[in-house]
Amino acid sequence: MTLQNPPVNSLSLDFLTEFCSALEKLEMDKSCRGVILTSGQPKVFSAGLDIMEMYGKSPERCGEFWRAVQEMWLKLYSSNMVIIAAINGSSPAGGCLMSMTCDYRIMADNPRYSIGLNETQLGIVAPFWFKETMVNTVGHRTTEIALQLGQLYSPTEALDIGLVDKLVPEDQIIATATQTMTKWLAVPDHARQITKSMMRKPTIDKLMSKREPDIQNFVSFITKDPIQKSLGLYLSMLKKRKS
Amino acid sequence: MTLQNPPVNSLSLDFLTEFCSALEKLEMDKSCRGVILTSGQPKVFSAGLDIMEMYGKSPERCGEFWRAVQEMWLKLYSSNMVIIAAINGSSPAGGCLMSMTCDYRIMADNPRYSIGLNETQLGIVAPFWFKETMVNTVGHRTTEIALQLGQLYSPTEALDIGLVDKLVPEDQIIATATQTMTKWLAVPDHARQITKSMMRKPTIDKLMSKREPDIQNFVSFITKDPIQKSLGLYLSMLKKRKS
Amino acid sequence: MTLQNPPVNSLSLDFLTEFCSALEKLEMDKSCRGVILTSGQPKVFSAGLDIMEMYGKSPERCGEFWRAVQEMWLKLYSSNMVIIAAINGSSPAGGCLMSMTCDYRIMADNPRYSIGLNETQLGIVAPFWFKETMVNTVGHRTTEIALQLGQLYSPTEALDIGLVDKLVPEDQIIATATQTMTKWLAVPDHARQITKSMMRKPTIDKLMSKREPDIQNFVSFITKDPIQKSLGLYLSMLKKRKS
Repeated sequence: MTLQNPPVNSLSLDFLTEFCSALEKLEMDKSCRGVILTSGQPKVFSAGLDIMEMYGKSPERCGEFWRAVQEMWLKLYSSNMVIIAAINGSSPAGGCLMSMTCDYRIMADNPRYSIGLNETQLGIVAPFWFKETMVNTVGHRTTEIALQLGQLYSPTEALDIGLVDKLVPEDQIIATATQTMTKWLAVPDHARQITKSMMRKPTIDKLMSKREPDIQNFVSFITKDPIQKSLGLYLSMLKKRKS
Repeated sequence: MTLQNPPVNSLSLDFLTEFCSALEKLEMDKSCRGVILTSGQPKVFSAGLDIMEMYGKSPERCGEFWRAVQEMWLKLYSSNMVIIAAINGSSPAGGCLMSMTCDYRIMADNPRYSIGLNETQLGIVAPFWFKETMVNTVGHRTTEIALQLGQLYSPTEALDIGLVDKLVPEDQIIATATQTMTKWLAVPDHARQITKSMMRKPTIDKLMSKREPDIQNFVSFITKDPIQKSLGLYLSMLKKRKS
Repeated sequence: MTLQNPPVNSLSLDFLTEFCSALEKLEMDKSCRGVILTSGQPKVFSAGLDIMEMYGKSPERCGEFWRAVQEMWLKLYSSNMVIIAAINGSSPAGGCLMSMTCDYRIMADNPRYSIGLNETQLGIVAPFWFKETMVNTVGHRTTEIALQLGQLYSPTEALDIGLVDKLVPEDQIIATATQTMTKWLAVPDHARQITKSMMRKPTIDKLMSKREPDIQNFVSFITKDPIQKSLGLYLSMLKKRKS
């Protein structure tokens, strides 16, 4: 599955809706047992949640957007398929979250790429299920530092802390992901699926039982004046950098 | 305590019953403060649960067997004694579980030996308390990979992920275990015991409150036709390999 | 903030009360966003809880003391400020607990210093919230070994297991702490604070809901005859060592 939302695979409402629908079709298709997730854009796996969806939008629209973000996470984290991330570019915030839902993460060994949940750097906060996905991946202490500082890690650092599982030269990333997939698919499906569900169900159930409060929490936070202002500043900084 | 159930220390119902009774006697014996668990068979610490106890047996018998497996885990994981595993051979599945209940694991540094919960490779699933014992030992992320792939680790790999605590040449394993025991027994018993219980009680309580559903779950899974078939295939493969 | 309770910064009732009051003032002071915690005494960061407060004292006094220990932990672990430990000396027991509540730990790279929760060595037991703070820092398995053995770690060992985050030569410890503080203060306060609270609230809530039983538990344990005797032996050993 190749992420294609030029230029940087921002996770907009439209893109998330399309992505979830495509993933659902694969999930239903009994001949599809595994998915390799990679980017069709150069240098970026996914830039994360589309800030334009959070800036100057109505509470209703913000809520609709957040529900789609939840849906993406729920579908990926609970998938019965083997999902392998072939991270061929930078992967901040929502892009890092997407990667962390996969069963295995292979990253291009390019020191100009980075990965991490850098929300605090933008003045916003990763919600509890982002946090728990990260704790399940790198443990409590590393998550505490990573989330408080909003730290982005180089591929080497990400490998050290366990945020990715393997580094390979960029031109070998799909071949390596395919080999890894072969290894995972050699395990009997039903046993692997029950095991995966046993590992992840408590975290998934937590969001399932709190979807509405989590949406309300996001909407009331993101529509606050100071948060809108700091997103505005960030967007104008991005524009300046481009020109 | 030397495991003696030739040829590979399979954990049969009889062997588990005898083992638990011997362990209980030591637990009652105030002069016994520590146990070193090792194998009297060459090349194998324990081959794990005896597949013959799960193949072609009545639901009643399967349930009786599973209760004995639970009992073994409960007795070992909650023991007031210091229990050190001297892993002088391969230790797959139930053998790995047994090792993980100990306070310290010393393994023979022989690359032909391996250790791990490889249930999924046989098409079966490690239950929640196997999983939690492993999470308590190597953390969530490593457990997620290890259990899904049913991975067996070489001694060096096992040391890297924290599945064992120390590697020594095979002929030094008992001497090293004895030295380690001396260190652990130097700590005042009551303080060490309260501390051990504090660390393990939540995991133990979880199984204690779910013993019957866990037995029913095992019996209904293991007596299913496709599971019986895949165990049959596995057994005939083992027979071929021997001859 | 410099700990000054000669000769070894023992955490007595008076010292804890003064410390909490000073910390509360800084917490209220909006111009203070971060605190560096270090020792004004040579060779010792803090020797931990003052044993004189637990030896030969009335149950009421013991209870008052324990409430102050809880208060210190609650205030530090839930602080909205960035708290960095500049550990310029040994830091056993309560000193280690204090360090673990901080956001970042820098230790002087002097092999004669040590750090750890060594309660079991004295025949006493670290309570559940000491344990959970340690699990949050170094994970379940390392905590299991560390607490059962009451192990004190050299700075190099402490870095290896993640009990401290950085080692520097002793004369660079404050400069390094200041640089680290600058990095942490560059993150928007409100986002960092919400994130910190999200990581720590479950652990804090657990003690908050069990303060009184935890005090009763401590008092009934510490006033027991055999415990008083073993503290007495420890104290006379300390006296002998001094003379």
